Parts: sequence; C-alpha cells; structure tokens
Amino acid sequence: MTSRGTSGDRRRNVKLTVEYDGTGFSGWQRQGSRRTVQRCLEEALARVTGERVSLTGAGRTDAGVHAEGQVANFRTASELPADRIVGGINANLDEDAAVLSAIDVPIDFHSNRDARTKVYRYTISTRPVREVLQRRFVYWSRQRLDCRMMREAAGHLVGRHDFDSFRAEGFVEKDTVRTVEEITFDEDHDQIRIFFTGDGFLYMMVRIMVGTLIDVGRGHIEPDDIPAIMAARDRRAAGATARPEGLCMVEVRY
Amino acid sequence: MTSRGTSGDRRRNVKLTVEYDGTGFSGWQRQGSRRTVQRCLEEALARVTGERVSLTGAGRTDAGVHAEGQVANFRTASELPADRIVGGINANLDEDAAVLSAIDVPIDFHSNRDARTKVYRYTISTRPVREVLQRRFVYWSRQRLDCRMMREAAGHLVGRHDFDSFRAEGFVEKDTVRTVEEITFDEDHDQIRIFFTGDGFLYMMVRIMVGTLIDVGRGHIEPDDIPAIMAARDRRAAGATARPEGLCMVEVRY
Repeated sequence: MTSRGTSGDRRRNVKLTVEYDGTGFSGWQRQGSRRTVQRCLEEALARVTGERVSLTGAGRTDAGVHAEGQVANFRTASELPADRIVGGINANLDEDAAVLSAIDVPIDFHSNRDARTKVYRYTISTRPVREVLQRRFVYWSRQRLDCRMMREAAGHLVGRHDFDSFRAEGFVEKDTVRTVEEITFDEDHDQIRIFFTGDGFLYMMVRIMVGTLIDVGRGHIEPDDIPAIMAARDRRAAGATARPEGLCMVEVRY
Repeated sequence: MTSRGTSGDRRRNVKLTVEYDGTGFSGWQRQGSRRTVQRCLEEALARVTGERVSLTGAGRTDAGVHAEGQVANFRTASELPADRIVGGINANLDEDAAVLSAIDVPIDFHSNRDARTKVYRYTISTRPVREVLQRRFVYWSRQRLDCRMMREAAGHLVGRHDFDSFRAEGFVEKDTVRTVEEITFDEDHDQIRIFFTGDGFLYMMVRIMVGTLIDVGRGHIEPDDIPAIMAARDRRAAGATARPEGLCMVEVRY
C-alpha cells in the first residue's frame, strides 16, 4: 500500500457530472447515516463496481441546494466502460439524482483542486403570490426588489477580495481571498436569476452574497455599503444567508 | 329558493385563476375523501367565506396533471374584497396549489360553459439521461423523436373534427366533435413542448393526441395514418395515453 491509500492504487480515474434536486438531501457531503448525495452515489457506485468507492466532489452543496452540473471523481479498478457506469449508477439512484456523464480522466485529476471556475445560479421570484410549480427551485420574496440597486451592489463584489464577511462562522478557512469573476443578472417577468462565476466560493458564500444583495434590493442597505461590509471581515456585517432552494450549482470548468 | 339551488341565490360570482402541481392530487374533481384540487379549494373557501362553497372548474384535469392557469368560479354572499379572497385562500392551501387572482364577474359567468379557448402544454424530454430537476413536469422518452414527422401528424389533428378515437373509453359524450385551433411545437435542446389550443377537449383527449404523436415520432405510425385513425371513431385506433406529468393547463380564454 502506498501512502495515498487504497484509492490511489487504482488504475483509473473517472469524472462524473451529476444533477440533483437538493430538496430531499442533507447536502452533498457524507454525514454518518444521513441521506446525502455523496453517500447515495457512493452506494450506487459500490453496487456497480463491486468496490468500496470514495467520491471527491467539486463543491459541498448544502441541504436543499440543487445541482445541474456538480462534478465528482473516483478511482477504480473496474474496467466497465464509462457509458455503462452512467447507466449502472442511475439504475441504483432514486429519482432525485442522476449522473449525466462519466468520462475517463488522468489519474491525478481532482474535481475540486483542479476546478478553474465554478458557476452558481440563484433564482428569486417576486411575483405577488408564492411560487407553486417552481417552489422547490426558487426563493419567493414577498417584497419587490430593486434590481438596479442589486446590480450596482454586485459590482462591488466582483474582483479579487477577502470574503471573510461572506462566509459561515465557525468554519476555519486559512485563506478567505477569492476571485468573483462575474455576477450577472437575468430578469424575466417576476423572476431574477443571478449567476455567480468565480474561482471558488467559501462555505455559504454565495447564499450570504445573495442575502446581502436582497437587503440592497429591499432598500435596507445601499450598494455603496458593500466595500465597508467587505472590509469589516465580520460575518455580522453582511446580510442574512439566503434560503437554499434558490441556489443551483450550474457548472464547473477545468 | 329558486330552481337554481342555493348557490344561485348568492349575490356575487367570483372567478379564480389557479396554479397547482398535480403530483400530489387525485386530479381536479371532487371524489369522496380523495385529495383533489377542487376539494382543497372548496375547504379553503369555506374557511375564508364561512359558507359551504361549490366551485365550478373550467376543466377536469386528471391525477398528476398540472395547471398554471386553471379557472374556476363560485357564488358567495361574502363581501370580502377579491384581493383578500386570494390571500385568505392561499393561507389555507398547502404549498402545491395557489390562487393567482380573484375577480368579480357577472352573476351568470360559468368558467366551463363560457370558455372560448383552452390552452394545454405537453412537455417531452428526450435527453439521454432521465430528467431529475424537471421530473415532475416533463415526460422523459428514452427514445429520440422525429419532431418533423410529429408536426406533420399534428397538422391532421388541427381543425374541426370528430375526436371520438381520441377520448377515454367508458365516458359518455353526446358530442365528440371539437375544434383544435392550433398545435404548435417549441423545440429547445432535448425538450419538445407541444401547445394545444382549442375550444374544448374531450376526456383524456390531449394525452391521447400526445401518445399518438409520440408513436409518430418513434416511427411506429405515419403522419398520414392520422385521418384513418380519426375516421375509425375507435379509441383502439389511436396511440397510448401519454403520462400525466408532462401535461399542464396553461390558460383559459373567455
């Protein structure tokens, strides 16, 4: 056995793209006996490969957060062709998750460390009546939001900054500097979709940015307050953590 | 009491536009103790108005079929303003249904008899992997569909025809002639959305038309077979009834 452990010895590294409805999951990451996406996938993979498989995900989505393009990789000695892996895993998953594709990647590929860019989308509805058909995937705000002000505030978040104010307390992070490459808004009738593109996001960072932007949209804080919130390096300076159902992990680029 | 019964005596007629996720309902129409949309709405209305209220719906959607714009009306002696009725009903409904609007209409307005045009949408996905995020609202077809052939077949369904072959057996209908004003296709990546516009549809008619169009898309029958299927006036001549989850009642025009 090498110092990398058993998984390091395996001959193949497979990259999966995964879609899931986060509503019924306690998030991505394994937590004992809880129903998490990682656990369900690892159990499905064990059945497909006949091995105990350890999955590495590109991002730890929280309970209730969705993914259209989560990426994960695992090493295996199984010689099953990649397309057979897709069908095999999906036959062993419930209806709220599926693997969209599997491809062989170099043995040292790591879905999180090698990620260049991650894209998240947060969807807000401000229609007069609560959402019904889209209730699992949209955050409904009873109050109207001033989207022009939100865009202005978002401009202050873009760039390379210390996002210490925009991360969940109680989680140790050595480096809280991240680059938000782009925040774009897509308004359609009563829906606002905000896309966040960056090299990586701290724990809860997207949801705290959204909560802060919502505060701006409601007129509780000004767009020009953002630099001071950022400079405070204090979670309490930023807005509330926006609800999980509006968030979706859209894409990971390598 | 007049011959119209108690509801005819009430002073006001209110028209509701209703949205629901049909997944958890046994359809629109009251059926004993089953959880139907009509029943949930009538119970909510009873709490809001303090009266026993009888709702008339524009269409009886089946179990699992959704609505973005179902219309219903009821008579009441309640003097509650229409917007308070919306809030009151919605506070008494579960998360899978909501009233979008309520307006006062003439006392003789009847949501079904007075409907000029109804619009339904059926959504089919032919992506390689089953649908996850949209699984409640999209029918997933493992096989690819030839959309050009389906459009051609749909052309034969448009117009004033006897749709006796396209209705559920065992339901007596005096008149099986209907006018399908338009069938339009909207293709987007792996999704096909088919919009059916008509003066009214027989029981299961949209789903049987879709099932037949799917048979065409799979190459099991030819577009030019449609006139003979229609002429047969026999349910067995048409295709299978398409699954309910792809169907949504979009709009009723008066």
